[in-house]
Order: sequence, then structure tokens, then C-alpha cells
Amino acid sequence: MLILYTRTGSCSLASHIALEEAGAAYETREMDFSVQQQRSPEYLALNPKGRIPALVTDRGVLSENLAILAYIAQAFPQARLAPTDPFEFGRAQAINAYLSSTVHVAHAHRHRGYRWADDPAAHEAMRAKVASNMAECFTLIETEMLEGPWVLGEAYSICDPYLFTIAGWLEGDGVDPAQFPKVSAHMARMVERPAVRKVLAALT
Amino acid sequence: MLILYTRTGSCSLASHIALEEAGAAYETREMDFSVQQQRSPEYLALNPKGRIPALVTDRGVLSENLAILAYIAQAFPQARLAPTDPFEFGRAQAINAYLSSTVHVAHAHRHRGYRWADDPAAHEAMRAKVASNMAECFTLIETEMLEGPWVLGEAYSICDPYLFTIAGWLEGDGVDPAQFPKVSAHMARMVERPAVRKVLAALT
Ligand SMILES: N[C@@H](CCC(=O)N[C@@H](CS)C(=O)NCC(=O)O)C(=O)O
Ligand SMILES: N[C@@H](CCC(=O)N[C@@H](CS)C(=O)NCC(=O)O)C(=O)O
Repeated sequence: MLILYTRTGSCSLASHIALEEAGAAYETREMDFSVQQQRSPEYLALNPKGRIPALVTDRGVLSENLAILAYIAQAFPQARLAPTDPFEFGRAQAINAYLSSTVHVAHAHRHRGYRWADDPAAHEAMRAKVASNMAECFTLIETEMLEGPWVLGEAYSICDPYLFTIAGWLEGDGVDPAQFPKVSAHMARMVERPAVRKVLAALT
Repeated sequence: MLILYTRTGSCSLASHIALEEAGAAYETREMDFSVQQQRSPEYLALNPKGRIPALVTDRGVLSENLAILAYIAQAFPQARLAPTDPFEFGRAQAINAYLSSTVHVAHAHRHRGYRWADDPAAHEAMRAKVASNMAECFTLIETEMLEGPWVLGEAYSICDPYLFTIAGWLEGDGVDPAQFPKVSAHMARMVERPAVRKVLAALT
């Protein structure tokens, strides 16, 4: 039994959807950020980063969406959630690495500016740039990354739930997703998938 | 023949060392950041992100260190640069994902604050926090990630050149690497490797 530590609305949705798509036996544990549960001694013992997601397996704990997604794909090969050819796998990892190291980070400057500066005026200055940064990232995704119908083309993969999760933040970040027709069509396609419906229904 | 786009002193060193360790046939192309060559139309046609590294293969171009490193490990399996077991590979990817999405990003706030805010005072506030953020990241690396002698333990892997590359930024970021004995010993061990010596010699 796998256990995924999650928080509704956060990046853990990507790994959650992937577990469902893989047909894995799993449970989730929702962390209460309002009481900083992600920084409780119990959780830090599990994931010393104090962030979600973390996936508890019988071999140990994995953190980082990108790593958890690749693990799910490789541990449940029959679900075909990632290419096995090294170059195609590299393309998939490059997209997920962009999502985690650039797009997620651009978004995090909206509410988590305190990570990178102590001055409240700097937090305000960071917040002011989130919409244009997210729009810039999604312009690149729309024109250069999302092949359609799925991120990698014909085959659904671990890139899809990750893009879906982060695209879900656009409106809150002040960006109209309708600017990006391929991304919007991808979101519409995602919510039709039984696994995605099941996960979203469980969260609400 | 593989071609890696690099810039001396930057994160591309990780992929460069991995190519050498893999025994790959490759060439490097050094980009001149002083004339913004990474944003030239020629380079953007290759990597629309305008960043290095990018690896040109006969199948296409890969960007993102994390993806290039995994690709090198999988394309040159005889070099044994990554575990093949899904959980162990996940552990390796989790470390590299932390390096790219948290540690590299913490460092980038020193010179690239303009990515996340327009106000020069905010850039100053970001710069002021780089040393403590990098020290916090390396405390976690020292205590929770670096097993020794190599990052994953007995086996050298694609995590080693990546950690080595980012640890090389500590001094410039105002952090004394001597605070982290395991990281320092790892750096000393790395520069003894023939592949690392060869790459460093070629850069100077
Ligand atoms: N690089 C990590 C980032 C994880 C992350 O930042 N998660 C956020 C939620 S989206 C979190 O746990 N934040 C809690 C906090 O900062 O205290 C990943 O991709 O998994
Ligand atoms: N997430 C990317 C980041 C690449 C990156 O930011 N590279 C820097 C050098 S360390 C760069 O090309 N900077 C040029 C610029 O910002 O114009 C990766 O891990 O490869």
C-alpha cells in the first residue's frame, strides 16, 4: 500500500492523479497547512523538506513530484505512463523539470515570497510579476511543448497530470487560460478522464 | 555525435561531466553570456527557453540538466550512472529535482532577481537572503541526502556531478563549504576523478 501526502489545491494533485491512472493501491493523507502540519515533527521525520507531496512506499519515502511521477510510471509499467526509450523519456523529464523548476517556482512567488526575501515590499514586487511570468511560461508550453492531444502527442503520460495541475493555478495567478487554446483544450480533455474525475470528486 | 551547449561556471558543468563519465562522443559549444548569445535567434531556434544546457542528439534537442543527466545514464547503460530499479531511480531523481527546483533556484536569486521582480530594491532583498537559503539547503543535503562516499552511497551516479556543480557556487554565494564536511569531502573526491579533471582542464 502506497501513501501519498497531499494538500488539496497544491502540486500533489499531479502525483495523486498518476497513482489513480496507474491503478495503484494507495491512500492519501491530507495535510493541514493552516496549522503548518507540513512542518510538524511527525511529518518532518518522514520528509525533512517540510513540503508535499511525499510518497511512502515499502522501500522508503520519495519526495518531489517529478521523482514520484517517474517512479509511478516505472513501478506500474502496464499503465504505460512514460516512454521507455531514453530519448523520449528525456523529453518527458525535460517537460516535467521545466514545470517544477521554472513554472511552479514562478507561481510560488505569489504566496511564498518569504522564501527568497525578508522585506514585505519585495514580496509585493514578486507578486506583481507572477501573472506575466506565468503567461510567459504558458506561451512557451503552448507553442513548444504541448503536442496534443496529450503533452507528448498521442500517448498520455506523467506530463499530463503535472501540466493539468499547474495550469489549474493560472486563473488565481491572474492569467486567463483562454489565451492558450491548446492548454485549455488539454484541461477539458483531462477532466473527462475517469481517473481525473475520481480524484477531483474525492477532493471536494 | 552529441553537442552540449555550455557556459563555464554555470549549471551545464553537471551534464558536461556526465557525458565525459559516460564515455560519450561529444563536443561542447560555449555560449557567450556577455553578448546574450543564449538569447540569439540561432540559439532560441534550438532551445526556445534561452537557457543552457541543451544537448543536441540525432533524435532532437533535450534541455534541463535533470533530463539530460537521466538521458545520458539511460543512453550509456554500461557506464552505470543511474540505478535501474524504479525506487532507487526515484531516489536519484528526487535529489536531482531538489537540486534543480530548490537549490539552483535559491542560488539564481543572487544575479537573476529580475526574473521574479522588476524593482531593484527587491533584487537587493533577494540577494541578501541567498547565503542563508543556500546554507539551509546544504544543511539538508549534508544531513539527509549525501550518503557518502557518493551521493547515493557506494555507487557513483548522475547525482554526483550535479551536486558538485552546485556546491561549487557556495563560496560565491557567501557560504563557507567547510561548514559541510560531507559535502566538502565529496567535492575533494570529485576532483580526483579522471573525467572531472579532464572536463575542468578543458574549461580553463
Ligand atoms: N520541488 C517540489 C516542491 C514541493 C512544494 O513546494 N510543495 C508545496 C505545495 S505546492 C508545499 O508543500 N508548500 C508548503 C510550504 O511551503 O510550507 C516538488 O516539485 O514536489
Ligand atoms: N532548469 C534549468 C535551468 C537552466 C538555467 O537557468 N541555466 C542558466 C545557467 S546556470 C542560464 O542559462 N541562464 C541564462 C539566462 O538566464 O539568461 C536546468 O536545470 O537546466
